[in-house]
Amino acid sequence: MQADLICVGNELLTGLIENSNTGFLARRLWSVGIPVREACVVADEENAIRIALERALEASDLVILTGGLGPTDDDLTREAVAAALGLPLVVNFPWLERLEHFFNERGIKMPDSNRKQAMYIEGSKLLENRRGTAPGLVLEVNGKIIILLPGPPQELQIMFDKAVLPILTKNNHGKLTKVKTLKVFGLGESLLEEKIKELGKWHLPAISYVSKGYEVDLQIKGSGDLATVNDTIEQAEKSLKDLLGDYIFGSDDDTLAGLVSRLFVDKKMTLSLAESCSGGFLSDLITDIPGSSNYYRGGLIVYSREAKVNLLGIERELLELEGEVSDVTAKLMADKVRILFDTDIGVGITGIAGPESDSSGNPAGLVFIAVSSKNSIKSRELKLIGNRRAIKERASQIALDMVRRTLLNQGT
Amino acid sequence: MQADLICVGNELLTGLIENSNTGFLARRLWSVGIPVREACVVADEENAIRIALERALEASDLVILTGGLGPTDDDLTREAVAAALGLPLVVNFPWLERLEHFFNERGIKMPDSNRKQAMYIEGSKLLENRRGTAPGLVLEVNGKIIILLPGPPQELQIMFDKAVLPILTKNNHGKLTKVKTLKVFGLGESLLEEKIKELGKWHLPAISYVSKGYEVDLQIKGSGDLATVNDTIEQAEKSLKDLLGDYIFGSDDDTLAGLVSRLFVDKKMTLSLAESCSGGFLSDLITDIPGSSNYYRGGLIVYSREAKVNLLGIERELLELEGEVSDVTAKLMADKVRILFDTDIGVGITGIAGPESDSSGNPAGLVFIAVSSKNSIKSRELKLIGNRRAIKERASQIALDMVRRTLLNQGT
Repeated sequence: MQADLICVGNELLTGLIENSNTGFLARRLWSVGIPVREACVVADEENAIRIALERALEASDLVILTGGLGPTDDDLTREAVAAALGLPLVVNFPWLERLEHFFNERGIKMPDSNRKQAMYIEGSKLLENRRGTAPGLVLEVNGKIIILLPGPPQELQIMFDKAVLPILTKNNHGKLTKVKTLKVFGLGESLLEEKIKELGKWHLPAISYVSKGYEVDLQIKGSGDLATVNDTIEQAEKSLKDLLGDYIFGSDDDTLAGLVSRLFVDKKMTLSLAESCSGGFLSDLITDIPGSSNYYRGGLIVYSREAKVNLLGIERELLELEGEVSDVTAKLMADKVRILFDTDIGVGITGIAGPESDSSGNPAGLVFIAVSSKNSIKSRELKLIGNRRAIKERASQIALDMVRRTLLNQGT
Repeated sequence: MQADLICVGNELLTGLIENSNTGFLARRLWSVGIPVREACVVADEENAIRIALERALEASDLVILTGGLGPTDDDLTREAVAAALGLPLVVNFPWLERLEHFFNERGIKMPDSNRKQAMYIEGSKLLENRRGTAPGLVLEVNGKIIILLPGPPQELQIMFDKAVLPILTKNNHGKLTKVKTLKVFGLGESLLEEKIKELGKWHLPAISYVSKGYEVDLQIKGSGDLATVNDTIEQAEKSLKDLLGDYIFGSDDDTLAGLVSRLFVDKKMTLSLAESCSGGFLSDLITDIPGSSNYYRGGLIVYSREAKVNLLGIERELLELEGEVSDVTAKLMADKVRILFDTDIGVGITGIAGPESDSSGNPAGLVFIAVSSKNSIKSRELKLIGNRRAIKERASQIALDMVRRTLLNQGT
């Protein structure tokens, strides 16, 4: 079984509203082994919807349309689908009563325009809407399933999970598809692909690579009955872990910050940060994780030389001699902030976020990172590319990975 | 002129990556009066790309494809477009040299797979990529414009603005559409709509509202010849500014952080921050702006009571008496950080980012913000809703707006 998605709405074609429905539906369908063949966005026009539907029905067994079920004149999805299939629209009296009740309860006379939300395509089944006034619709025509869902994500998502998923999994008996994602940090996509190809004769199942800038997601896909699926994924996971070692930092929904957070909690250790060019981004990443206040004591954004001297206590002469952007300075920042906040780990990041070089002629993208613990200090020099944002993000992610590796080497 | 968008990528069809390119391109095209007819997402398959392209070319004068320009085997957009148009792919030697240089500089041998990024469709023009290794391509075939852009948003966006927009506006002679956006902070969308309706008889042109959580974008659209367009927009802008005063903080591409940055530079003033619940997000926002090191001296993330006592020098007894999350504490944080960093403005943010209440029973979302200057201190108590991220973002944006209002009240 494969699916086509059709999102209806002018507001999506002008970019006024970000389309989150495609991503949501794609993830949900993928998780039950139904790939999406194509997803499109069309205008609130009967003709455009009809053409997209006919095209989708030619290619896929399942077509999901979202949006255009509202009460106003430009909500035309029901009408367009009915016309494309040559089926009449009829009133569903229980839903009409429900709508009237809904408005009565709120002390409002139901606007006439809402009546059309009680219209359904003959032969279709209505889907409960817990958060709005438009029902979803499901119908089967010539062995193909067509599903109409409301556009607002808060209505669509609960309707999909409660009413649509059960229909789809029932129809997909026997064959199963499962995807496991391994998360890799520190190896680029092409290098990773080369390495994995080296595994050579060993028979890897379908693996795809998704590069997310700092990390690459390795997706292992298994299909068949439950035993086969689990076996395929387990074997592939083992081979990849043997090959890639601690380049793999986690799986599925893990994030680097989330994983580092778990390590801090497990090892009962604490963290402080001294950020210069990353400007607070690393602190922001860490404090996004619930419970970070249990190990993160705080940080300093030393965005000026004065701050490095007065707050961190780095000697002015030394800063001038070595340069604010240098390995020595990064190490001093990491050490001093660790002592200042009395934590197990201290991190120092100093560099040039750009867009211009600094007054000493250091190019944008030059960054030094140091991670200090009671018994070690590690540092790296990086030459990053991209705009300020990219440099801040990349430097912070690499710092997080250095912290991860430091924590992995600490006894509990 | 109307456009079709084709986003290529399996990762979009499985929902691993959210597709932000459609929204970005739709907004940009809309702002120069080019409506998008249809936007679709197709797989990394030559056939799927070809079919989508042929369909799009039948309906639209402009087709933009994104993604599939990477170095790996499943990057097939160039190949598919060339095949669909019956044109050969040829090597661009300057770009090949540039790629080799790029890898050499980083001390890496260029992987063979990257060679294909120097291939272009015969007759096409290469578009500069400031942030990656794949050039964009533009070609004209039978009066239709076809544009290939890289998938990563940070590469695509700058390429579109610098290289594509100039091509499109040149081609759209005669009738003109222009959109001017006024940026509003501190008034919700419905309140804003009510206020604007009060303008009553005065004839406003088409105005749309785009709510972005913290701010509302008011879009004024003018169509016709140049004089009419400018006149329409000027008049509407004047009326809206009279009505909304300093709720309007800027226009078009202005951001609150960017505007605050300009104010600091203009007034030759300096800034420091003491953040607790916002965890570095405000500092991150400010340091995203190029040149922020000219006025931002630095900040403290006081994520623990110890940090508030030892680094900011707030008395422990007072913290215990008033609570770490209180108006008094926010004000002390703002004052103390201002003095510590010797700046004109100091900001203090303390609150509960959630998901749980704190040990004193303060609910998630309770936030106090204070802005201190040499001759004033202003504070606000907020009850915000949403998850940790939303609370951090909203608190930081409101703090920025408070800083903006403080700066507006300072003599130069």
